Amino acid sequence: MDDALWFAIGESVLKIIAILIITGLLIRIGKIAIRNFFKVRTRGPLRITERREATLMKLLENVLTYVVYFIAIMMILSALTINVQAMLAGAGIVGLAVGFGAQSLVKDIITGFFIIFEDQFSVGDYVRIGQFEGTVEEIGLRTTKIKSFTGEIHILPNGSIVEVTNFSLFNSVAVLDIGIAYEGDLEYAEKVLQEYLETTTEKYPELVKTPELLGVQQFGASEVVLRIVAESLPMKHWYMGRQLRKDIKRVLDEHGVEIPFPRMVMYSRQEGGEQKEFGK
Amino acid sequence: MDDALWFAIGESVLKIIAILIITGLLIRIGKIAIRNFFKVRTRGPLRITERREATLMKLLENVLTYVVYFIAIMMILSALTINVQAMLAGAGIVGLAVGFGAQSLVKDIITGFFIIFEDQFSVGDYVRIGQFEGTVEEIGLRTTKIKSFTGEIHILPNGSIVEVTNFSLFNSVAVLDIGIAYEGDLEYAEKVLQEYLETTTEKYPELVKTPELLGVQQFGASEVVLRIVAESLPMKHWYMGRQLRKDIKRVLDEHGVEIPFPRMVMYSRQEGGEQKEFGK
Amino acid sequence: MDDALWFAIGESVLKIIAILIITGLLIRIGKIAIRNFFKVRTRGPLRITERREATLMKLLENVLTYVVYFIAIMMILSALTINVQAMLAGAGIVGLAVGFGAQSLVKDIITGFFIIFEDQFSVGDYVRIGQFEGTVEEIGLRTTKIKSFTGEIHILPNGSIVEVTNFSLFNSVAVLDIGIAYEGDLEYAEKVLQEYLETTTEKYPELVKTPELLGVQQFGASEVVLRIVAESLPMKHWYMGRQLRKDIKRVLDEHGVEIPFPRMVMYSRQEGGEQKEFGK
Amino acid sequence: MDDALWFAIGESVLKIIAILIITGLLIRIGKIAIRNFFKVRTRGPLRITERREATLMKLLENVLTYVVYFIAIMMILSALTINVQAMLAGAGIVGLAVGFGAQSLVKDIITGFFIIFEDQFSVGDYVRIGQFEGTVEEIGLRTTKIKSFTGEIHILPNGSIVEVTNFSLFNSVAVLDIGIAYEGDLEYAEKVLQEYLETTTEKYPELVKTPELLGVQQFGASEVVLRIVAESLPMKHWYMGRQLRKDIKRVLDEHGVEIPFPRMVMYSRQEGGEQKEFGK
Amino acid sequence: MDDALWFAIGESVLKIIAILIITGLLIRIGKIAIRNFFKVRTRGPLRITERREATLMKLLENVLTYVVYFIAIMMILSALTINVQAMLAGAGIVGLAVGFGAQSLVKDIITGFFIIFEDQFSVGDYVRIGQFEGTVEEIGLRTTKIKSFTGEIHILPNGSIVEVTNFSLFNSVAVLDIGIAYEGDLEYAEKVLQEYLETTTEKYPELVKTPELLGVQQFGASEVVLRIVAESLPMKHWYMGRQLRKDIKRVLDEHGVEIPFPRMVMYSRQEGGEQKEFGK
Amino acid sequence: MDDALWFAIGESVLKIIAILIITGLLIRIGKIAIRNFFKVRTRGPLRITERREATLMKLLENVLTYVVYFIAIMMILSALTINVQAMLAGAGIVGLAVGFGAQSLVKDIITGFFIIFEDQFSVGDYVRIGQFEGTVEEIGLRTTKIKSFTGEIHILPNGSIVEVTNFSLFNSVAVLDIGIAYEGDLEYAEKVLQEYLETTTEKYPELVKTPELLGVQQFGASEVVLRIVAESLPMKHWYMGRQLRKDIKRVLDEHGVEIPFPRMVMYSRQEGGEQKEFGK
Amino acid sequence: MDDALWFAIGESVLKIIAILIITGLLIRIGKIAIRNFFKVRTRGPLRITERREATLMKLLENVLTYVVYFIAIMMILSALTINVQAMLAGAGIVGLAVGFGAQSLVKDIITGFFIIFEDQFSVGDYVRIGQFEGTVEEIGLRTTKIKSFTGEIHILPNGSIVEVTNFSLFNSVAVLDIGIAYEGDLEYAEKVLQEYLETTTEKYPELVKTPELLGVQQFGASEVVLRIVAESLPMKHWYMGRQLRKDIKRVLDEHGVEIPFPRMVMYSRQEGGEQKEFGK
Repeated sequence: MDDALWFAIGESVLKIIAILIITGLLIRIGKIAIRNFFKVRTRGPLRITERREATLMKLLENVLTYVVYFIAIMMILSALTINVQAMLAGAGIVGLAVGFGAQSLVKDIITGFFIIFEDQFSVGDYVRIGQFEGTVEEIGLRTTKIKSFTGEIHILPNGSIVEVTNFSLFNSVAVLDIGIAYEGDLEYAEKVLQEYLETTTEKYPELVKTPELLGVQQFGASEVVLRIVAESLPMKHWYMGRQLRKDIKRVLDEHGVEIPFPRMVMYSRQEGGEQKEFGK
Repeated sequence: MDDALWFAIGESVLKIIAILIITGLLIRIGKIAIRNFFKVRTRGPLRITERREATLMKLLENVLTYVVYFIAIMMILSALTINVQAMLAGAGIVGLAVGFGAQSLVKDIITGFFIIFEDQFSVGDYVRIGQFEGTVEEIGLRTTKIKSFTGEIHILPNGSIVEVTNFSLFNSVAVLDIGIAYEGDLEYAEKVLQEYLETTTEKYPELVKTPELLGVQQFGASEVVLRIVAESLPMKHWYMGRQLRKDIKRVLDEHGVEIPFPRMVMYSRQEGGEQKEFGK
Repeated sequence: MDDALWFAIGESVLKIIAILIITGLLIRIGKIAIRNFFKVRTRGPLRITERREATLMKLLENVLTYVVYFIAIMMILSALTINVQAMLAGAGIVGLAVGFGAQSLVKDIITGFFIIFEDQFSVGDYVRIGQFEGTVEEIGLRTTKIKSFTGEIHILPNGSIVEVTNFSLFNSVAVLDIGIAYEGDLEYAEKVLQEYLETTTEKYPELVKTPELLGVQQFGASEVVLRIVAESLPMKHWYMGRQLRKDIKRVLDEHGVEIPFPRMVMYSRQEGGEQKEFGK
Repeated sequence: MDDALWFAIGESVLKIIAILIITGLLIRIGKIAIRNFFKVRTRGPLRITERREATLMKLLENVLTYVVYFIAIMMILSALTINVQAMLAGAGIVGLAVGFGAQSLVKDIITGFFIIFEDQFSVGDYVRIGQFEGTVEEIGLRTTKIKSFTGEIHILPNGSIVEVTNFSLFNSVAVLDIGIAYEGDLEYAEKVLQEYLETTTEKYPELVKTPELLGVQQFGASEVVLRIVAESLPMKHWYMGRQLRKDIKRVLDEHGVEIPFPRMVMYSRQEGGEQKEFGK
Repeated sequence: MDDALWFAIGESVLKIIAILIITGLLIRIGKIAIRNFFKVRTRGPLRITERREATLMKLLENVLTYVVYFIAIMMILSALTINVQAMLAGAGIVGLAVGFGAQSLVKDIITGFFIIFEDQFSVGDYVRIGQFEGTVEEIGLRTTKIKSFTGEIHILPNGSIVEVTNFSLFNSVAVLDIGIAYEGDLEYAEKVLQEYLETTTEKYPELVKTPELLGVQQFGASEVVLRIVAESLPMKHWYMGRQLRKDIKRVLDEHGVEIPFPRMVMYSRQEGGEQKEFGK
Repeated sequence: MDDALWFAIGESVLKIIAILIITGLLIRIGKIAIRNFFKVRTRGPLRITERREATLMKLLENVLTYVVYFIAIMMILSALTINVQAMLAGAGIVGLAVGFGAQSLVKDIITGFFIIFEDQFSVGDYVRIGQFEGTVEEIGLRTTKIKSFTGEIHILPNGSIVEVTNFSLFNSVAVLDIGIAYEGDLEYAEKVLQEYLETTTEKYPELVKTPELLGVQQFGASEVVLRIVAESLPMKHWYMGRQLRKDIKRVLDEHGVEIPFPRMVMYSRQEGGEQKEFGK
Repeated sequence: MDDALWFAIGESVLKIIAILIITGLLIRIGKIAIRNFFKVRTRGPLRITERREATLMKLLENVLTYVVYFIAIMMILSALTINVQAMLAGAGIVGLAVGFGAQSLVKDIITGFFIIFEDQFSVGDYVRIGQFEGTVEEIGLRTTKIKSFTGEIHILPNGSIVEVTNFSLFNSVAVLDIGIAYEGDLEYAEKVLQEYLETTTEKYPELVKTPELLGVQQFGASEVVLRIVAESLPMKHWYMGRQLRKDIKRVLDEHGVEIPFPRMVMYSRQEGGEQKEFGK
């Protein structure tokens, strides 16, 4: 290690500091520019769907950050590698590292690009991706953030997003399964439910049309299961399900229709008793 | 960074804007052309099955978009790479990125091509793919969209579609398992059900032929399980299952055939009592 | 983009249209030829097993389609690539795409070839492949179609077919587990069942030989489980199982042999009562 | 497409037909030769274990078929490729296809080779491979066929065979778990069982030695579980298990040892009654 | 092995010892410098969010250690390989080893870099990664340490971190499901709960707003399930859930609203009795 | 195909037969030599642990077989390839096949080598590997054979052996969970058990030390669960568990300590009765 | 095979024997040296944490063995390959084999290196790795041995160790869930438990601080579940859990607080009776 080496180290340290300061400034200026552009745009003629606007702004900031940092890191690395190469004979390892790093990074970015390009989901949509479910908080080039209804944030690298389920594009459907006692009059119960259902659309604006009483979905162990489906506004099916359940409970109570408990027929037998045993 | 660099940057920015405007125009014109072509065609002599027409139109628009955007991106990249290469020594990374991106994109497109070419499913079919089930909303070159009956949209990259189950090509079959009490007369129950089933085809046009009473499918813990299969029009088996279940409940009630609750035989024993214990 | 380019584009569009028309004609003529050949053949001396004939005809049509389309696409691509290469510098991407496409296609075709060459299953066989089960509807070079008994079509790329279970090659065996009460006379029950079983072969021609009463398969919680196996003609085991179950129910009823319900011994205890508690 | 091309096509069609006819003849002659060789051999001095003879004959036929067909296909391909190459510039795809095909084929064949070379199982053995279980029907170079006891044939490519469980090499052991009532005399029950077990070897020649009463395997919820193990001839453990279970039921009945039903201690409590509630 | 070899070995041993001593000193000095820098910094103007400060300090120490050790090992290896190469002809194995080592190391480091760069979580956050859950103890370049609430430390290589769930960024929501008896007055129960919930915000400062009584979430087998959601400060939802549950129990008791036990309707039947059996 | 080809075929057939005969002789002689060597060795001074001797002998025979067969096959292949190459242009396929075969073979052999070199288990040890459990029957270079206690042989390629659990190296521990009634005196039950446990070591030589009564492991639904651990000689824990369970049953019976049945508190309620319903 | 070959074989056999003897001696001498070094060291000034000393000694011996054997095998191979190459033309297979062997070996060693370098766990720590749990018995360069509390040894190749859970670094926490009857006074029960818990720290030195009564964790089907957490010394949480459970049982009994059995409300109904059926 001679003087030239130490000098080279000093020079690159200075370079790196300069790069870092410029990087910081560029990002701040860029973000302000993006925000202003969107403010101005909303008055302009080139309007796009409002739903994508939030997505695009977040994304542009994101792209800006990555591009600036990427160029900065490349510059820092090129400033460093002179020394690294000076010290190590087998410098191919650095190249290998960057190659592998680029691989997963590139996969994330390309998937992210298609998610946005094909408008699979936007910020604010309610989606399910793999085992994670929630409202999209942010779509980045490399990661997507989803906020579950209990408050936690799921951070998914885009490369791990394969199949997406989007709940916000179409009307949602609430599915209610109501158990009715076997010994009761099925048609009377259906009539009671049907009459009630026809009154719901005026009561609940979240309902798109009159809920449908589909019929006998299943013969349960202790009850006949009737299914009701209620098409409601997107993501209002949980709310509507709860409202309808509460009303149906009241309506069935008023008309004396029983929601049965589990049942069992019990045979009492005397042990070793006079029970006729076959073959004896 | 000298002037030539700044000039090159300015030039490519202009190029990119021009490319973007032309791209947008091409796509709008193309889509109108495709729609008109299909409108005209329906009167022409070269008719193909109507079921595939919707698929083809959606697809052509899709192909148009991808091809135009692909060429545009290539042009933008070629406009950009001059500068990127000017700034970075190791520009092989960009090539690597495009290579990896093309890989998954190509896999999606080729699978998508075969799905359409082999007519595995069309827009409007009810399909199951992996764990997702619903009506096909759109078949694209890269992704397929399926709408589940509860309203959510599943977006599947074609490359992740392996085994497809299509419910819309043939008649569907409703399967009903009816539990009959052990202590009842099995043959009487079968006669009652058989008589009823023979009246169903005239009542329900969705039935393709008289439902079949297959026989004793299983000895359950508390009941003898009879199986009925009813061939119905495609995707009408859920509806028919519900109708038949309702009718069967009524018919069995009328003839006094019991659908049994879970049963248990209970031996009451006195603890520490005079129960004869073996070996004592 | 000069005139030569536009001219080249025009030329290839014409070529492509010509290719498409010839392709369509060739396929229609080929299919008619194949069908006639098979009609003639059935009278000729070179007969092969009838079971494979349907498979072969479907397959030949399939091969014809693929080969003709493959050549057509190659010609179209070669007509196109001149222009593509003229526009893009890095045209290696197209080669990459074809390479990857060929990979999965080749894997499907080779597996398909072995399925037919080794006669693993023919059209009409009942098979289970992975989680899919049903009658083989069509064996293609790239995909196999299976129709489940409830009417849906499963479309499997041959490359995803690994282990195949074929139910149609040998006789099937119906397995019946009959629960007998613990307190009854086991030997009497076995005698009753044995006597009945010996009468079955003349009643049911689907039975290959007298069903066997294997013996006590298991000590259940509430019953002694007897197992009966009945060898029947291929795929008739479900039918025979139902018939035998119905008969056995009748025979056991007639001889007073009980099929027991779940049982439980219940000790009633007074809480906080005079129950002798240990150690106190 | 000039005349030379059409002529070349005609020539190769003729070649292919000739190859096909010769192939067919070779296989028939070869199979007869193999069968005669084995018939002669059985009288010769070079005897090998009979268990492997069936395996070897099936295998030799199998090898013959593959080798002859392989050479035939190679010849056909070499006859074809002249034309294919004449038509297509990028003929590397055909080579790629053969390469990929050879890969999985080779993997299957090598695994198959080791299965036979190491004598992991022979035709007629009862084996479990992955989730499939049954008697080995045929060991081929590429696939192995297993026949389950209910009659279906499982066809496994050898490359998917990793861990093999062979039941036919050693004696099998039947394991019986007998539940005895908690309140009974455990030692008396053990004495009764032990006395019975000592009489079994003379009654059942399938037993290799007197079954062993291991002791209290588990404290169940309602019973003390005693375990008996009975070493029997290979694959006779299911038969012996059923025989022993039937006898043990009879012996326990004769000595008044109870096999208990599920039990439960029930406390009846008056609701809102004078039950002393803590802290009040 | 001649003298030169032994001399070379001696020389490299000396080199290695020198390298190890210098390495040790560098790391100690570096760590002290980092800590002082952070102490000074807290008074300076360049403040960053406090939450990231702990992360950054741990990380810088971590980077220092890796870089110094990496250079040291490279130097040791370069000192060693002379001899290794002198002894072995095929020295490519050493290169292979380093290559593979670098691969997984690089993957860990790159993922680690993005976790910190994108601020996915900081030291002190409560996160779930795969099946592991707990408070982040340390974020290193290669591994992340998570401390579960029961005290064990989970050590995860960063390369195995894909999807991250962070509970500390937003308010948490406690979800309470309360079962109410079917036969009771649902609206009365809702009124009681609602009145109580409105008093909670002043009692518990951890609550962000008044908990919401959503409504009838489900018709259970024995109870109507009401759902309450309570938004609370981050990670206070477990505490709030317990407090609310205790209070609700007391409030329901005071107002006589029953939380029901499992229920069953029991039909007692006489065996073989005069029960009207159908069809007889 | 000219005469030289036929001559070459004849020549190689002769060569192959010669190779096969020599191979067979070499293996027989080699095996006898190995056995004699081990017989002599047992009297010699170079003794190694007896546990590894059986392993080594089996292994040496195994190595001998593989090496001799490997050389034989190589010779046969080299005798064959002349002709194969003469017939086929693209002979690279044979090389590919050998390459792939060598890959999995090499992986198996290397893992097998480390299993023996690190003495992970020897012939006779009781091990669990993946889902297979039993006594090691044979450790080969390519496969390991494990015999389960019910008599079947599991044949595992060494390459599929990753994590090994060896039960024969250290003492085994029997774990007994004893349920005691809630209403009984826990300390009395512990005293009874403790007194009994102190008498066990003299009764059972398989016990290494007095079994320990750890304490209350769990509050079960109907019982307090006490845990006892008994360190015993390797693989004697199943035997000791059974013995201790039998004794403990007797001891608890003698002291009147109850092992409780499942319990349930039953509230009888009059339906629609005067039960005070809240809110009404 | 001429004389030179036989001579070469003889020469290499002699070489190999010499190598083996020297190898054996080197290892024995090396191990003694390592042990003495550690004995001396404990008195010297360069002390490191005692916890890592055992790890380091085991490891050094391990490294010694591998390095010496590796050099020996390389020498043996180089002695052998002369002959192997003389016999086989395609000797590349040997190189391939070594390459593949090195791959998995290198992966194991690198992971092992990081486990020790980052001090993830030491000999004697209680860890969970994947599905295996126990005390670390030995950390080698290639494998890690874990001894479970029931006595078996798990042998894990380091390459299969990904996520590690270490229980020995921090205090452990015992978690106790106590069920309290719904009808009892919750606050009284909490007071009783709280009073008891405050007396525990002086009784049990293993407790780090007074156990905390967190509150109502859950509304169970038949009980209110209270949760107690008790921070204790590392790995003492199982012991403390058992002690606390025993004490709590006694304390609750003394204060008359009931730990409830499963409960059920039973409605007795007369079948076909005068039960008011709805709709009739």
